[in-house]
Amino acid sequence: MSNNSNNSRRKFIQQSAIAGAGLVLANPIALFSQTDNTKTMSTIKSKGYAGKDEEGKLTLWNFERRAIGDNDILIDIKFSGICHSDIHTIKGHWGKQQYPQVPGHEIAGIVTAVGKNVTKFKLGDKAGVGCMVNSCMQCDSCKNGEEHHCETTGMTGTYGSPEKSSPTGITQGGYSNNIVVTEHFAIKIPKNMDLKFAAPLLCAGITTYSPLMKVKMKKADKIGVVGIGGLGHMAVKLAVSKGAEVYAFTTSPSKVNDIKGFGAKEVIVVRSGEDLKPWKGKLDFMISTVPYAYEMSAYIDCIKPYGFFTQVGQPINGELTINNFNMIFNRVNFNASLIGGIPETQEVMDYCAEHKIYPQIEIIKAEEINDAWKKVVNKDARYRYVIDAATI
Amino acid sequence: MSNNSNNSRRKFIQQSAIAGAGLVLANPIALFSQTDNTKTMSTIKSKGYAGKDEEGKLTLWNFERRAIGDNDILIDIKFSGICHSDIHTIKGHWGKQQYPQVPGHEIAGIVTAVGKNVTKFKLGDKAGVGCMVNSCMQCDSCKNGEEHHCETTGMTGTYGSPEKSSPTGITQGGYSNNIVVTEHFAIKIPKNMDLKFAAPLLCAGITTYSPLMKVKMKKADKIGVVGIGGLGHMAVKLAVSKGAEVYAFTTSPSKVNDIKGFGAKEVIVVRSGEDLKPWKGKLDFMISTVPYAYEMSAYIDCIKPYGFFTQVGQPINGELTINNFNMIFNRVNFNASLIGGIPETQEVMDYCAEHKIYPQIEIIKAEEINDAWKKVVNKDARYRYVIDAATI
Ligand SMILES: [Zn+2]
Ligand SMILES: [Zn+2]
Ligand SMILES: [Zn+2]
Ligand SMILES: [Zn+2]
Repeated sequence: MSNNSNNSRRKFIQQSAIAGAGLVLANPIALFSQTDNTKTMSTIKSKGYAGKDEEGKLTLWNFERRAIGDNDILIDIKFSGICHSDIHTIKGHWGKQQYPQVPGHEIAGIVTAVGKNVTKFKLGDKAGVGCMVNSCMQCDSCKNGEEHHCETTGMTGTYGSPEKSSPTGITQGGYSNNIVVTEHFAIKIPKNMDLKFAAPLLCAGITTYSPLMKVKMKKADKIGVVGIGGLGHMAVKLAVSKGAEVYAFTTSPSKVNDIKGFGAKEVIVVRSGEDLKPWKGKLDFMISTVPYAYEMSAYIDCIKPYGFFTQVGQPINGELTINNFNMIFNRVNFNASLIGGIPETQEVMDYCAEHKIYPQIEIIKAEEINDAWKKVVNKDARYRYVIDAATI
Repeated sequence: MSNNSNNSRRKFIQQSAIAGAGLVLANPIALFSQTDNTKTMSTIKSKGYAGKDEEGKLTLWNFERRAIGDNDILIDIKFSGICHSDIHTIKGHWGKQQYPQVPGHEIAGIVTAVGKNVTKFKLGDKAGVGCMVNSCMQCDSCKNGEEHHCETTGMTGTYGSPEKSSPTGITQGGYSNNIVVTEHFAIKIPKNMDLKFAAPLLCAGITTYSPLMKVKMKKADKIGVVGIGGLGHMAVKLAVSKGAEVYAFTTSPSKVNDIKGFGAKEVIVVRSGEDLKPWKGKLDFMISTVPYAYEMSAYIDCIKPYGFFTQVGQPINGELTINNFNMIFNRVNFNASLIGGIPETQEVMDYCAEHKIYPQIEIIKAEEINDAWKKVVNKDARYRYVIDAATI
């Protein structure tokens, strides 16, 4: 076979794929933007709440998602969590953005279409999408289930990442009524797990679970959690469920009773660095979810020498100051952690279903999103807002 | 025995100790500021180069050191290294200082008097003093040879630390002709080690040796060293001696040949972050001696995931910025390290003597100290200035 015929053959295969025999549909008519789609698969009509500029006010927007490929599933979104990262991203705190952009990376819904190669899901399954929707799947990191550390293309984020197959040029997230995603990047949600509780596990859950597992937390370890919001309250619940003694550090006195209810052994209300001094050198490990620059070194001092401190909250432009006078004496290792890979995200989903670990949520209507964002910034969320996608 | 008689007895013992029989002297007359000292031991006359204010210009100053206690030795200083920390301290970059203050914590000389309880040294021995001269010796850290991490009183620094027994109220360092120090905090210098080479090992040597040992560096490990001055060049030599592949990062093109001479496998001249990109994720460990705030995150990126980066250079006010966007992806552990304990300082001294590892030094006269400081700040030192104390 010559190179030429080889190319032709490849082209033919590609076209056949586009012609798309084998796509299993729940309700074909509703899915397509064009009903006359006998020859090529059509893009998927979607509507969601999008930011239009750095002001960060979200408004309803009709857009299209890519056609369902052979390895894709279509999820009818039921619930979508609100993460502080959504706010930072849309407001340009982490870099310039393309607009309109629909945020949301805590997505839970029902599978309503599957591509012909899909084996992981069938119609009607519960499925979720977290913080990424693609990666190269060829490199060592991808093969080892660390798709978020893909060494070639990097991961494709669930929203705002350039993506050729996306009609809008970038990925669009979960504050919407549906999403098309490669099956590998969708998480199976166990039947007994309520979709509204499943959603926050896909970012808040995995982001805190992964470093807790990495540090090989043991029963009775003294684990500190700094910042008790969407991520922090999951860190408390997860660490408690593993038998750790949890010390929760919050600046909100009004959260104390809730946090004790989550199982924390002690809740420390931090008004100034003085409140941290009694904890100097006491903890085995600390995780901080604070998404702004803050007096980090004073918290790091609370860890035993040679222990670890993991920062998962992402401040504006990523910048944190660290005081090396503290560091030379406390001898603590500082590191940071980014979500978790797909296998580990599945693991935390299954773990929470099995042990009935549910985020503390408040369901809101789509029209309340902008208000909810203000409350998140003002630390008024208790503890995760979840959008009822039926209201979009 | 009543409490009272107990107290009286303690008082008697203390007074007897002060009366001080049993002090072995090389030349008693020369040591005392008062020759009539039959009843109480006298303070020791000393002269040194002292800073008078934050301007940081050093001038000759006559002062007194404490009398030689039962556990003390008197060292006739022969050589004293110039460390960047001396400059930061005297100029108040790390906090307010008391003046006059004689800096210097790389001290090598000859023992000329020993208190009656001293067993570690005899007259004529070579002895050194590094960055600390006391600690509680009761706490776990002190008992474990980590006197620099003393948990009760903290370590007493070789200069500028409040000390009741010091006639000037603070400790006074090694840019001087003698020093009185508790024998425990003096380091034995092997006979075959030249005193002028021994001096820099007492800060530059131990400060780089300790983290290299802590990270359990193995043969053929890829070790990065950032900042090739007094500390950095010792880090290169020490790591090379342990069989590591050393990658030296410098901003001074004129140092390249020297550094290759120290045994570095590769010398990277860093003009901008671009020069670091080829090294992304390549090194097992990195130590940075840079004593100013700098683009640290770009260097940290050069380490393999889950590797360690140790900052030993101390910037102004200790403040460093770290970019968490880098940290979530590089997955490196950042920590800092402060000198090393007395047993480990003895270890590096003995190791360097045995393996003939000598710092690259330039001997200067006391009157050249102020010039030398300027050169250190301007990165013109090659690589450690050592003061000939005979010129003070
Ligand atoms: Zn998130
Ligand atoms: Zn990859
Ligand atoms: Zn030093
Ligand atoms: Zn101690």
